[in-house]
Amino acid sequence: MEQNKRTPISTLGEFGLIRHLTEGFELQNASSKYGVGDDCAVLEYPEKQILVTTDLLMEGVHFDLTYVPLKHLGYKAVMVNLSDIYAMNGTPRQITVSLAISKRFGVEDMEQLYAGMRLACEAHHVDIVGGDTTSSLTGLAISITAIGDAPKDKVVYRNGAQETDLICVSGNLGAAYMGLQLLEREKSVFMGEGNAQPDFAGKEYLLERQLKPEARRDIIAALAEAGIQPTAMMDISDGLSSELMHICKQSGKGCRVYEEHIPLDYQTAVMAEEFNMNVITCALNGGEDYELLFTVPLTDHEKVSKLEGVRLIGHITKPELGCMLITRDGGEMELRAQGWEALKD
Amino acid sequence: MEQNKRTPISTLGEFGLIRHLTEGFELQNASSKYGVGDDCAVLEYPEKQILVTTDLLMEGVHFDLTYVPLKHLGYKAVMVNLSDIYAMNGTPRQITVSLAISKRFGVEDMEQLYAGMRLACEAHHVDIVGGDTTSSLTGLAISITAIGDAPKDKVVYRNGAQETDLICVSGNLGAAYMGLQLLEREKSVFMGEGNAQPDFAGKEYLLERQLKPEARRDIIAALAEAGIQPTAMMDISDGLSSELMHICKQSGKGCRVYEEHIPLDYQTAVMAEEFNMNVITCALNGGEDYELLFTVPLTDHEKVSKLEGVRLIGHITKPELGCMLITRDGGEMELRAQGWEALKD
Repeated sequence: MEQNKRTPISTLGEFGLIRHLTEGFELQNASSKYGVGDDCAVLEYPEKQILVTTDLLMEGVHFDLTYVPLKHLGYKAVMVNLSDIYAMNGTPRQITVSLAISKRFGVEDMEQLYAGMRLACEAHHVDIVGGDTTSSLTGLAISITAIGDAPKDKVVYRNGAQETDLICVSGNLGAAYMGLQLLEREKSVFMGEGNAQPDFAGKEYLLERQLKPEARRDIIAALAEAGIQPTAMMDISDGLSSELMHICKQSGKGCRVYEEHIPLDYQTAVMAEEFNMNVITCALNGGEDYELLFTVPLTDHEKVSKLEGVRLIGHITKPELGCMLITRDGGEMELRAQGWEALKD
Repeated sequence: MEQNKRTPISTLGEFGLIRHLTEGFELQNASSKYGVGDDCAVLEYPEKQILVTTDLLMEGVHFDLTYVPLKHLGYKAVMVNLSDIYAMNGTPRQITVSLAISKRFGVEDMEQLYAGMRLACEAHHVDIVGGDTTSSLTGLAISITAIGDAPKDKVVYRNGAQETDLICVSGNLGAAYMGLQLLEREKSVFMGEGNAQPDFAGKEYLLERQLKPEARRDIIAALAEAGIQPTAMMDISDGLSSELMHICKQSGKGCRVYEEHIPLDYQTAVMAEEFNMNVITCALNGGEDYELLFTVPLTDHEKVSKLEGVRLIGHITKPELGCMLITRDGGEMELRAQGWEALKD
């Protein structure tokens, strides 16, 4: 937010700002026929199914600009939408971006936000094809809609998990949540004493997981290359427990997942100990990991075991058995969705 | 906003609220393959081009809940997006709805908002296929993305106007702006004296134009039936002047429009006089009419003259001649976009 130069947005106006932010951004996808500049964007998807997802981020609820740089915010805002497209086994192609901006932001701030968005789009070959820019009385609101495609027989829903299917997770869990705790702690220290400097040494990975998550395009590519078609899939935005329960509920099944197999990073474990938190609770209920949770038929066991960065954490059961966590000592605990349900206090 | 019963949204949570608001809403369009309930909606458009538009509405900037009922707000929020699809000569098929809701709203408030949205969707055979519901620190934010289709050779852009083309407008202009002035006046009266009752007698049409605009599906249908393919088209959301200048700029042309041909409703004229405003200025610069502005080849003169509710207001010229308004007394004035540019003060 600190800028040497701060040009009021009113000097450009709505249309001027959109033009300024989107100029020089060439359309890359064959399906993008017309981008910014008319009443609608025009797309063409003659052969595939189209995936659409949307997300609204509000300042003070989803992000805190006292510790999130605008460029990171733009990057993450795009990434979380792309993650939803990958979670259907699709390829993201376009996004639209709507912003509501209060007077405390200048043109340079929006350039920073867009720089992050462009970076995310470029990394995933996605076109910005439209949007809306308007004013807000308080704070910043960001609404992104992402559009992608997939061959009809490749789309993966949440409701296809079958009994005995293996439950898999990419990457590791809980780090983004630990990163958030760390940022919140340093913020309160900073608020208390003007001269305190944040102490993030050795915890960079946790910060990166919170501030710059990566949608798992690589996992989708690896699954396709290995010839694995998941039976159900979601991205983990609200915590593993919550997402597992969605898959089980929508598939009409139960599950057993094993505490010892839940993937954790070393820094997550160290940080949890420092905060006196149970690291497994963080992995189960901390949100924003944007890893992929998916189920595959038992017959794919060998194939999936060979995939780098994918961990088998359990299996799907009859619905009567419920959704259970098997603890290290062999105990059983029912999973509960304590995740980030945005509207519960 | 007055409700006898007010159930806190936290009793349902995010997923519960979405389920509650979208249940019983059957998908109507063949292109809607899967709606609310997964990471993405799934659509299929094998033969047509796809149109996408998006809009973000903020409380206090775009709407004032002291005089806009939530049901009307929902209706209008959908309608303004459908209007953008029609403005490309397309047919709207799906919308996604994202809401950010502060604690002063209850479940019943959101039911009202959705009731208006459903009404708009039903009138235009549109499916609600997805969305996001989250909390807001202050006020209500509504982000809608609309998706529609059109045969490839029927899509109408802003940049196709040709010299000698006729400029046409549907309905009449300035009424929505007058409706807003009226609501603002009654609000200030109401704020001043607790017992004052709003006086809207004889002005119902203006209120309806402001509170319940109708996207011009009928005009698109009439154009198709008459075999007229517009060369350029926009919907009038920011005022006639501003939109005419967009078409001229993007087409690389100029225009001449005639004051005496600009369509006005009687109530708009009466109200402008009461407010001591120039009614033509209101028609040129007042926003939110959501009428269609389009150009047709001169050879379609006879066909377009026969269309009910469409008025010829001028013609396209060489760019050197600029964008001119010809006044009743034969004078020439350059058009200026003083419209509703949302980010200018």
